[in-house]
Amino acid sequence: MLESRTPIKVEEAIDRVLRYKKKGSTESIAIEDAYGRVLGDNLLADHDVPLFDRSPYDGFAIRAEDTTYASRETPVHLEVVSEIGAGSVYNQPIKENQAVRIMTGAPIPEGCNAVVMLELVKNIEKDGRAFITVNRSFSGGDNISFRGEDTKKGTILAEKGSHINPGIAALLATFGYKKVPVSRKPKVGVLATGSELLAIDEPLQPGKIRNSNSYMILSQIERAGGEGILLGQLSDDLDLCFQHVRSALQEVDFLITTGGVSVGDYDYLPEIYQKLGANVLFNKVGMRPGSVTTVAEKDGKLLFGLSGNPSACYVGFELFVRPVMRGFLQCPNLFVRNEEAVLGVDFPKPNPFTRFVRGEMTFSDGRVVAKPTGLDKSGVVSSLASANVLIVLPGGTRGYKQGMPVKVLLLEDQQGSFSVNNLFQKSIGSEERMQHRE
Amino acid sequence: MLESRTPIKVEEAIDRVLRYKKKGSTESIAIEDAYGRVLGDNLLADHDVPLFDRSPYDGFAIRAEDTTYASRETPVHLEVVSEIGAGSVYNQPIKENQAVRIMTGAPIPEGCNAVVMLELVKNIEKDGRAFITVNRSFSGGDNISFRGEDTKKGTILAEKGSHINPGIAALLATFGYKKVPVSRKPKVGVLATGSELLAIDEPLQPGKIRNSNSYMILSQIERAGGEGILLGQLSDDLDLCFQHVRSALQEVDFLITTGGVSVGDYDYLPEIYQKLGANVLFNKVGMRPGSVTTVAEKDGKLLFGLSGNPSACYVGFELFVRPVMRGFLQCPNLFVRNEEAVLGVDFPKPNPFTRFVRGEMTFSDGRVVAKPTGLDKSGVVSSLASANVLIVLPGGTRGYKQGMPVKVLLLEDQQGSFSVNNLFQKSIGSEERMQHRE
Repeated sequence: MLESRTPIKVEEAIDRVLRYKKKGSTESIAIEDAYGRVLGDNLLADHDVPLFDRSPYDGFAIRAEDTTYASRETPVHLEVVSEIGAGSVYNQPIKENQAVRIMTGAPIPEGCNAVVMLELVKNIEKDGRAFITVNRSFSGGDNISFRGEDTKKGTILAEKGSHINPGIAALLATFGYKKVPVSRKPKVGVLATGSELLAIDEPLQPGKIRNSNSYMILSQIERAGGEGILLGQLSDDLDLCFQHVRSALQEVDFLITTGGVSVGDYDYLPEIYQKLGANVLFNKVGMRPGSVTTVAEKDGKLLFGLSGNPSACYVGFELFVRPVMRGFLQCPNLFVRNEEAVLGVDFPKPNPFTRFVRGEMTFSDGRVVAKPTGLDKSGVVSSLASANVLIVLPGGTRGYKQGMPVKVLLLEDQQGSFSVNNLFQKSIGSEERMQHRE
Repeated sequence: MLESRTPIKVEEAIDRVLRYKKKGSTESIAIEDAYGRVLGDNLLADHDVPLFDRSPYDGFAIRAEDTTYASRETPVHLEVVSEIGAGSVYNQPIKENQAVRIMTGAPIPEGCNAVVMLELVKNIEKDGRAFITVNRSFSGGDNISFRGEDTKKGTILAEKGSHINPGIAALLATFGYKKVPVSRKPKVGVLATGSELLAIDEPLQPGKIRNSNSYMILSQIERAGGEGILLGQLSDDLDLCFQHVRSALQEVDFLITTGGVSVGDYDYLPEIYQKLGANVLFNKVGMRPGSVTTVAEKDGKLLFGLSGNPSACYVGFELFVRPVMRGFLQCPNLFVRNEEAVLGVDFPKPNPFTRFVRGEMTFSDGRVVAKPTGLDKSGVVSSLASANVLIVLPGGTRGYKQGMPVKVLLLEDQQGSFSVNNLFQKSIGSEERMQHRE
């Protein structure tokens, strides 16, 4: 099928895809397996932390009022009547001028209202009884970690959609989550297309290249929190292709094809979409690389037709597939995190289309500088290895100069961004700001 | 055992630990499982990419010399004698004024030396034969992706110890790595200690807290590239403890205990180290939190005695355990990535010890700003959830002001830093630099 293609703007393309986003379900897994997953529910404190007033130090629990007149010249002597290890509770009433030896984390005994650190007292013995001497005064509340001081019962400690990091794992354990509610990973199928493709273990042949996109996308799917499923390669036969795509769609939440299925000038994919009764959302985007990106929808399920070109495929995935995957994972921030950096080189040549340049972000003197990684021809695979950002260069009639502020997409980030507002427009006054900085 | 503890400097402590670092072995896994692992060998290009001169565009392969006199007024007509799809090869000789229809990625046929893009020609028919009209001149080499242009055979595309990201996965596939050499994950055992600890599914009891550190560390181990093994909790019985630690050591590459095993004032761990014949490298570090950190070595195997305090435990792991794990993984960059940021708040109170403050790094106007996440009392677990950096505040007699340059440790980063030089010293002139910026 020879098809006409009218490019639409990147933001419009993202918008069209997002109309079909839907949330996935929540499942329950063991806390030991939770690292790196996405919280499927809010993490709520079901009790105060600490649950009781406790000692932050090794020392002695005392009654502050016993020390009111204590000084270096007139120290007070307090009798040590017991000791409390962490995990123990002391239930005797504490009387005037008594103290209790207390370990870090142990509950403050009733009647005590302050803690003196171990190193601030002198231990003495009188008539076979143990005393401490305190040579300054304390106020009620000194050196006590109060109940609820860290976290009040009912607090949301991490929101649904958060990436489970070591800190959240600690919170889950603190609040007794032996099982953790996590968002189910979306199943994302990957179908390679292109008669020039060799399997990874086939010997090289003239005119052919190994299928690298499938494995790249598999990693991108995992990074975005999904489960990638390699579904093989489409043949050159239209009917077989159609069957293959139709059955693949049943198995997955999202389906990605890379490359065009072409015989001569003809690309089968548009015909397959038509035969499926799929609704094509767009088939060309005003961006470089990745202009030949098609997204279609069939019964609410999205089919992504990414370019066979590695860079275009990479960018197409991050811009169009990732947001709906993050939506499925119930993340509030759908988009790759976007932040401002300083451009590290000149891009003198203007381009009418928004460019996404593979780059490396480095820190210099408290600023973030983004530079392209090596060559940026679109067929180049080697510069993807060290890329940790995509530098966004909105289309226009002028180039970009070193030192200009630019937006970057942080590829390795798990936090994400809530919006892509103004990301693909040239920021007004960016040149003035650059001059101001020079 | 009541032990005397003499604090040493953080850098000295790291140094002593690193004396016992050793490399782990390399194993071979399927490329489908390689994402997120660490390369166990250099990734070498075993052929040029592209392997042949190829077309970067859909268009027509031509002989540039046929277009020397072509212009809008005097276009040349070239006969289209064949077409080459991607993956095909055209082996006929191309004669004067002939052209071949060529798809993106297809090899340039012998005799041709330039490609004209599809949209730049007009197709015409003469006597049943197909021609294109070209109305400008081309030079040899125009629009050709040359053999080896992307990558020359023999190039190291990613070094041993690199984190396998989607770009590296693409390279692995391109170069036929169906099996990928990766560093074996170090096995890191985690033993909880402390009679105040409840198992995660036990109901709360007065004076007790749930064991959250084990799960936090498990996640930190995974983030650092290791395999965490929960080995349960040490009892209060010295002999049982000793047996438990001794057998645990056999199973793992590194052993972590958290908290002290104490009965009253006594901590069993020093006695266990002695009984094991372990060599204690240090038992106190001049830092906050985490001053009570012990590292010992037995027959070349490291035992980390981290504090029971969650923040101290977290910091102790990143500073002391992570570097030897990364060494085991054959990574050149052993340390958590450290970069410079701008301090977002005042820390007016000086501290003689180096502080590591849980923080969040944000981007603002091309600069990185680091602010503490909530409270920073050392017992506080909730501020760990949103922390993505540790802010390093070297000890000294003065506090820190908002706007000052500070070093931050990037907790979620996989790239790491090669060195910790000058990280824990107050940078000379940092205040002058701050003033300069104001």
